Amino acid sequence: MKIAVLGTGMVGKAFADRLVGLGHEVTVGTRDVAATMASTEPDRRGNPPYSVWAGDHPEVELATFAEAAGDAELIVNATSGNVSIAVLEAAGRDNLAGKVLLDVSNPLDGSAGFPPTLFVKDTDSLGEQIQADFAELKVVKALNTMTAALMVNPRQLADGQHSVFVAGNDPQAKESVTDLLTSFGHTDVIDLGDLSTARGAEMYLALWLRLAGALHTSHFNIKVVR
Amino acid sequence: MKIAVLGTGMVGKAFADRLVGLGHEVTVGTRDVAATMASTEPDRRGNPPYSVWAGDHPEVELATFAEAAGDAELIVNATSGNVSIAVLEAAGRDNLAGKVLLDVSNPLDGSAGFPPTLFVKDTDSLGEQIQADFAELKVVKALNTMTAALMVNPRQLADGQHSVFVAGNDPQAKESVTDLLTSFGHTDVIDLGDLSTARGAEMYLALWLRLAGALHTSHFNIKVVR
Repeated sequence: MKIAVLGTGMVGKAFADRLVGLGHEVTVGTRDVAATMASTEPDRRGNPPYSVWAGDHPEVELATFAEAAGDAELIVNATSGNVSIAVLEAAGRDNLAGKVLLDVSNPLDGSAGFPPTLFVKDTDSLGEQIQADFAELKVVKALNTMTAALMVNPRQLADGQHSVFVAGNDPQAKESVTDLLTSFGHTDVIDLGDLSTARGAEMYLALWLRLAGALHTSHFNIKVVR
Repeated sequence: MKIAVLGTGMVGKAFADRLVGLGHEVTVGTRDVAATMASTEPDRRGNPPYSVWAGDHPEVELATFAEAAGDAELIVNATSGNVSIAVLEAAGRDNLAGKVLLDVSNPLDGSAGFPPTLFVKDTDSLGEQIQADFAELKVVKALNTMTAALMVNPRQLADGQHSVFVAGNDPQAKESVTDLLTSFGHTDVIDLGDLSTARGAEMYLALWLRLAGALHTSHFNIKVVR
């Protein structure tokens, strides 16, 4: 499948790497291709700049948000929650029309320090805000409840014996995303319901952050035991 | 141990039943003993009134909030989150002084229908509000992340192979609560940290509610896989 991954951070790179490994045609979208490739600074976590990663991944294309989205059958929103809507605007409505958006972002607000709070919650969610702003997209919230490595390689942990959630208004779009998650190795995909249920998946982040602190690792996930 | 269980609802009765079974001396606290015993109506879920349950549990005493708390070494807040602070005020500060409060309540606001929202979240929690109002208590948040039956009988599900969280500022109080949870059958008690981490445990309710809807049962819990 032709897939656009919006975002050049840890999450975007994890998706691009995994998706090309599964045989997909992947274009990573960025605001300014030249600037992204020119950057020689490690990111905040000390990871090498995108250009170094790109050198190791010649099969992954880099393009503007608009070019990446325009070519794609499925789009992954791997941007920070606070810029997601601006990124989708930059991608352009014509390039989004009718497509599935796998939204893995979280509405984290780190402006007051750690742990971050959520800039939307309880009576609304970032997934719903994106859907409300871009009616032409079929938004499916998923994977936001775990660290990037586990999103795309769940078998790294307990042979994949943990759970992932999908929420969205379009049953076919949820099916496409569920198929993708299964291809990643997820074994327990729970359909929470329509996109309003993304409120639950996003608010879980508050617990995820405390668990990461208590366990001193982000390499964990929850399994829904029933 | 002498334990006060504040609240005569489903959660309070589940605690009282389990605690006497474990050999504790249990007093259930209510606002008005005569009124609680006089009620002949089933509750909103169709369960028989307290007086019927009390007939089957002669070893459980019923007393006012103040009497129950005054006699107790440990207090369980099994009231609805929206009345918890009023109930503790009714119990009286002198009766609370120096005691551990196991707070299993959730700040649910059902006034706008289902699913309920949270009346405190993200930058504060009900556990912290209680601690701020009653400095004489040692508040430990725990068990609010599962249905009453599993709080006190976790082995009913997957032989107890799922997780429970504790959050609190007093290490000794957390240890007492952890011992109690272990005696119930909990196998994986995760110390999230100080009481501010109760924000995570309480906000998880938003996901719990959607999971209960999607799974058509409240008889589930999460296991933290790491």
